[in-house]
Amino acid sequence: MNGAGTLMDFLDEPFPDVGTYEDFHTIDWLREKSRDTDRHRKITSKSKESIWELIKSLLDAWSGWVVMLLIGLLSGTLAGVIDLAVDWMTDLKEGVCLSAFWYSHEQCCWTSNQTTFADRDKCPQWQKWAELMTGHAEGAGAYLLNYFLYILWALLFSFLAVSLVRVFAPYACGSGIPEIKTILSGFIIRGYLGKWTLLIKTVTLVLAVSSGLSLGKEGPLVHVACCCGNLFCSLFSKYSKNEGKRREVLSAAAAAGVSVAFGAPIGGVLFSLEEVSHSLFYQIRLIFASFLDLPVVTVCYLLQVSYYFPLKTLWRSFFAALVAAFTLRSINPFGNSRLVLFYVEYHTPWYMAELVPFILLGVFGGLWGTLFIRANIAWCRRRKTTQLGKYPVLEVIIVTGITALLAYPNPYTRRSTSELISELFNDCGALESSQLCDYYNNPNMSRPVDDIPDRPAGPGVYNAMWQLTLALIFKIVITIFTFGMKIPSGLFIPSMAVGAIAGRIVGIAVEQMAYHHHDWIIFKNWCRPGADCVTPGLYAMVGAAACLGGVTRMTVSLVVIMFELTGGLEYIVPLMAAAVTSKWVADAFGKEGIYESHIQLNGYPYLDIRDEFTHRTLATDVMRPRRNDPPLAVLTQDSTTVEDVETLIKDTDYNGFPVVVSRESERLIGFVQRRDLTLAIKNARQKQDGVVSSSVVYFTEDAPQLPASNPQPLKLRRILNLSPFTVTDHTPMETVVDIFRKLGLRQCLVTRSGRLLGIITKKDVLRHMAQMMNQDPESIMFN
Amino acid sequence: MNGAGTLMDFLDEPFPDVGTYEDFHTIDWLREKSRDTDRHRKITSKSKESIWELIKSLLDAWSGWVVMLLIGLLSGTLAGVIDLAVDWMTDLKEGVCLSAFWYSHEQCCWTSNQTTFADRDKCPQWQKWAELMTGHAEGAGAYLLNYFLYILWALLFSFLAVSLVRVFAPYACGSGIPEIKTILSGFIIRGYLGKWTLLIKTVTLVLAVSSGLSLGKEGPLVHVACCCGNLFCSLFSKYSKNEGKRREVLSAAAAAGVSVAFGAPIGGVLFSLEEVSHSLFYQIRLIFASFLDLPVVTVCYLLQVSYYFPLKTLWRSFFAALVAAFTLRSINPFGNSRLVLFYVEYHTPWYMAELVPFILLGVFGGLWGTLFIRANIAWCRRRKTTQLGKYPVLEVIIVTGITALLAYPNPYTRRSTSELISELFNDCGALESSQLCDYYNNPNMSRPVDDIPDRPAGPGVYNAMWQLTLALIFKIVITIFTFGMKIPSGLFIPSMAVGAIAGRIVGIAVEQMAYHHHDWIIFKNWCRPGADCVTPGLYAMVGAAACLGGVTRMTVSLVVIMFELTGGLEYIVPLMAAAVTSKWVADAFGKEGIYESHIQLNGYPYLDIRDEFTHRTLATDVMRPRRNDPPLAVLTQDSTTVEDVETLIKDTDYNGFPVVVSRESERLIGFVQRRDLTLAIKNARQKQDGVVSSSVVYFTEDAPQLPASNPQPLKLRRILNLSPFTVTDHTPMETVVDIFRKLGLRQCLVTRSGRLLGIITKKDVLRHMAQMMNQDPESIMFN
Repeated sequence: MNGAGTLMDFLDEPFPDVGTYEDFHTIDWLREKSRDTDRHRKITSKSKESIWELIKSLLDAWSGWVVMLLIGLLSGTLAGVIDLAVDWMTDLKEGVCLSAFWYSHEQCCWTSNQTTFADRDKCPQWQKWAELMTGHAEGAGAYLLNYFLYILWALLFSFLAVSLVRVFAPYACGSGIPEIKTILSGFIIRGYLGKWTLLIKTVTLVLAVSSGLSLGKEGPLVHVACCCGNLFCSLFSKYSKNEGKRREVLSAAAAAGVSVAFGAPIGGVLFSLEEVSHSLFYQIRLIFASFLDLPVVTVCYLLQVSYYFPLKTLWRSFFAALVAAFTLRSINPFGNSRLVLFYVEYHTPWYMAELVPFILLGVFGGLWGTLFIRANIAWCRRRKTTQLGKYPVLEVIIVTGITALLAYPNPYTRRSTSELISELFNDCGALESSQLCDYYNNPNMSRPVDDIPDRPAGPGVYNAMWQLTLALIFKIVITIFTFGMKIPSGLFIPSMAVGAIAGRIVGIAVEQMAYHHHDWIIFKNWCRPGADCVTPGLYAMVGAAACLGGVTRMTVSLVVIMFELTGGLEYIVPLMAAAVTSKWVADAFGKEGIYESHIQLNGYPYLDIRDEFTHRTLATDVMRPRRNDPPLAVLTQDSTTVEDVETLIKDTDYNGFPVVVSRESERLIGFVQRRDLTLAIKNARQKQDGVVSSSVVYFTEDAPQLPASNPQPLKLRRILNLSPFTVTDHTPMETVVDIFRKLGLRQCLVTRSGRLLGIITKKDVLRHMAQMMNQDPESIMFN
Repeated sequence: MNGAGTLMDFLDEPFPDVGTYEDFHTIDWLREKSRDTDRHRKITSKSKESIWELIKSLLDAWSGWVVMLLIGLLSGTLAGVIDLAVDWMTDLKEGVCLSAFWYSHEQCCWTSNQTTFADRDKCPQWQKWAELMTGHAEGAGAYLLNYFLYILWALLFSFLAVSLVRVFAPYACGSGIPEIKTILSGFIIRGYLGKWTLLIKTVTLVLAVSSGLSLGKEGPLVHVACCCGNLFCSLFSKYSKNEGKRREVLSAAAAAGVSVAFGAPIGGVLFSLEEVSHSLFYQIRLIFASFLDLPVVTVCYLLQVSYYFPLKTLWRSFFAALVAAFTLRSINPFGNSRLVLFYVEYHTPWYMAELVPFILLGVFGGLWGTLFIRANIAWCRRRKTTQLGKYPVLEVIIVTGITALLAYPNPYTRRSTSELISELFNDCGALESSQLCDYYNNPNMSRPVDDIPDRPAGPGVYNAMWQLTLALIFKIVITIFTFGMKIPSGLFIPSMAVGAIAGRIVGIAVEQMAYHHHDWIIFKNWCRPGADCVTPGLYAMVGAAACLGGVTRMTVSLVVIMFELTGGLEYIVPLMAAAVTSKWVADAFGKEGIYESHIQLNGYPYLDIRDEFTHRTLATDVMRPRRNDPPLAVLTQDSTTVEDVETLIKDTDYNGFPVVVSRESERLIGFVQRRDLTLAIKNARQKQDGVVSSSVVYFTEDAPQLPASNPQPLKLRRILNLSPFTVTDHTPMETVVDIFRKLGLRQCLVTRSGRLLGIITKKDVLRHMAQMMNQDPESIMFN
């Protein structure tokens, strides 16, 4: 009796790692949720026992907010540091600040008192390398020296980046968005969000962006924020021991990442309205203000990525995003340019006839999106399957070399891509000194500064057109080869750049056409001489939206909201027209966006919530075993021996086994995970006396009646899932897909009139869906 | 052989009404979805056969858009007509337009050329009744005559309204929102969205609003739009024969209803910016513009109500909402006031210290919400259970009489509630003639009109304060008794009115305090003499948001967006603070909003997607039969006779019966709906020879082996659902609730080791949830 008692106790103790998952496996959302409810119930009932337990339960309840606070603080800080470091290192390629070498070009001249407003970026403290080394600022020699050093720095940065990634954290490469989508949908990739990945991705992101490659930092910032989330999960067993709860935190962290990567719309606007006051009140109001901007972007984001989270998570995510945005702002006091990604203000309305070029830009965006996705995926597949993939360092060095070599001579590719986009978006004021604003001014002009009529273009503009065309071709080609290399690389900025360049070119063309041919019938109605009717900057913005839409296929709403960020609220119609066109055009060539394509390329088991499955197959067509396969590997509830189980585990690679009453009746009683079974038997062999190979394993409440000569049986009911999900063999696959998608299942058993027939796993579902869409079912690799 | 062939054919023909639902029953979403996929597949395969079939399939594909267009046109038209009729009839209570009796007061004076801007609402064409009848416009006699006629008109309108509702369409009463939420979640209420309801609700809504009762037209407009949706569903068998698809259309119709009820934000703003131009281009741009405003409001709305719809539905909903908004605008060309519900512009910022009164208003809103919900539910319960419910006409007459009697003497309750709210929201300009703006002007004022410093209040303001206080008490009390009467009645406007009155009172109090005590420490920092620091209109807006939040408990975001509509984008922080406080305060007294409370009062089976179920019960605790109940009523697959089935149907009132292999094995093979079974047997008895009471009913593929003497067996496999949903008895209820919620199930069977144990219906789930929350489980009435 006593012995049995101890045995019971022992078996009711959880042994370590029960209920965890193997690497590259799918989690079971229902099980995770139910485990968390158990834990919660235990804490609640314990909390009535003593004050100490009560405090512990309160701490547990507040741990969610604490984690959010920490995530916000750390990811905001990292984003701020990355911003500052990128600014500095990008400028370091060209020169150095003599007054303080850690200043970027802008900061250097900002702090200098010899700077005039017109020549903001020229000051004696900032010297180009050639000037510093030889004393000559001008001339062919100086140019070549600067050119050479520019390439050298770029090579150094990218070499460092790729080496660090290779040696310390291979997962730190890429944008990370496809993997994070997969992880959030319930997949385990150990180390993908680890400490090393966090550290190395932060450092190498700075290096990669500074090296001048055609890549952005927005996607990787989301990855960095998710790493922060994962880091802080490990502080609380509530999150570290439950993969479902962990994903709640990761989703919030991703929201914080989006918030720091893209800045905050209304808050930014408010900021620019209120630049004057700097009191504490102002700070507090800023907190409130940032509250507002988060919802729209973040809700949209969360709707895109999150599957199974309660509303509570949404509030926490807002909080994390808010803290992150505020931290970023506190760190980055120079220039409000970083608050909103790009902030523009146009003063003239757009006209109906302009919808034609806008829609053409949409078509361009869609075509570019298709071209980019196809070419990039083909190149990445080649990298995966051929020798090419074996020399990642060399590949990065070569691409960086070519990029730097071609980028330097062209002023539009030499500078950082976000500066380029900013300039392209800008409307030409009267005082603008840029080459793009080199118009012939009307001498008898008496209008206010922000309402300048259309003017004839000067030689600078024509020059810029050529340079922009070259930059466009260069960006289009080089981005295809850059995205997917073994360094951190985002895609937002390069896509926007391609669109912005194309848009600006079209915009200037339309503007000049309207100026020189204002008597044409299409211009007559809205473009009288002396009117300010075409805004080339708006065309750049529209083009950027179109290209972003074509590449990412994000729901149009997200693209629109992205552009609300730029402050151009009145121009949503042009943006919408272009984005919708772009999505339609791109969808005509293939439904998948770049992230989905990469998920597919990597074979991750990602079940898109938006796919509709309408084929008329039944569960029986998809389940395993197939017609000629060996029968399903099952365990019986009280007649299998330890040895049988071990043989089964050794001979098969299934992730779990159904448990039936007996092989004859095939009545299902539950499901046991392979991992739990392995651990339980190993544990029992080590710690429990009398468990030998011939011991019977039983899953029932009471031990089976066995002859006295038999060794002590082993009770494993604890690890048995008594509520496995079942469907009948006649269930339409449409319903099965729905169940997997909405409930987040890992597997589902198939029965007919109470008899167990087979099993369907998430992988089977995905393979079947791929097959139905005439794709290679073998492309789904993990389970 | 031939006979068997005919038999098969006959049985494969669907007999009418198979797969439909009884009134007051829950639909099975999975079954509806799968039936639609079948239909779709059939059409697609047929379309390859001939041109005619191809055209039919194209028509089928486009029918969704056609329905949306029709819904948009009709609901926009109805909304426009209702708006115009309400304006006219509200004014009819006071007087008539001599130049054209169908003109409202505003239109009458608008068309008159004897009107000056200062006296917009005074013109000779418009005469009060007393003036018209006696020739005396002033004096106690005229006043009393007007008073008397005002009450008379109100009584006439409300008597007509309640009589029409009672005689022709009992479902036309109330706001309709609770029922529409329930219907959209998958419940059948026949006639609730019928033609008669549409007609009568439209007419009586006008009457009810015009009668001056304390009710709004926003909720009923959504109901009207849903009726339009249902009407057009019947044109296409795709929608009329599938309850799931029908709900897609209804959801879109509801979006259209929201769009016409609340107006459109950005579009409205754009409109006011561009009032000058009136070209065709302008019209087309307006279409585009309205595209923008819909997303935010409508997405939020759709997220609130819709469960199971694909993304495609969202786009169609936008389209319907857009058409509806545009139709409304085309019909209602007078005054842009109707485009956005309330449009205000304030010129001064708010200050940190003002958050204190704002939060106090939030507390007020929460308390009022709680009070209103409790009192209204108590009153409605009394109406349901006592004699009171038997005299709806008398009740309406009495309430109208009291309302009119008390409302007329007070200028703030005499006019229509939306005008009142509009005035309360308004900031006092220098030229404002209203009593609320009766301030002592500073003689040496030289500021622009829209930046008037705070001034001391004149006697008019103090007078208004008293009248507003009385109006507040009156509105609070009368709304409790009005909402739920047997006439169409919305709750948005009365709730907002209560909040706006309270807010304005607080606002004026703060303003005067700040003016007279600007040396107090709290005012010193931000309210110097001569500054315009307090905007009482803003307080009214904040109060309205707080009360709306307290009553409806809509997610804070929706409240905020509602108020984006009013154009006060910069004032979201005050609105947010008040709405959040209001929600917290109200939630502390009870989680349910007014709509959920009414759903509960009526016992509808509504499973809120937001409720979290965390209790640790198992499926076995909830399933029927309970421990001491008779065993589950089942059918066997091939040994039940027609007579047995008929007895079972007669003796029980279950909605369906599981079919098992045999009573001994209890192996489940499927589930059959009661309604289908009844219809099939009735049909077979009538049309199929040889079917008698002793015929065996079988559900297998092949007829059972029977002695030759037996009568011909009846095959019913066609109506058997071969993929019923099952869970094991050990499944946690948390999971079961999740399954019901996410998959939209109607019932779920419970098994243990392959044996059928019992059944859980949606009603059982809701009852169990009510029990766990210590509520009366018997309150859930329908299944």
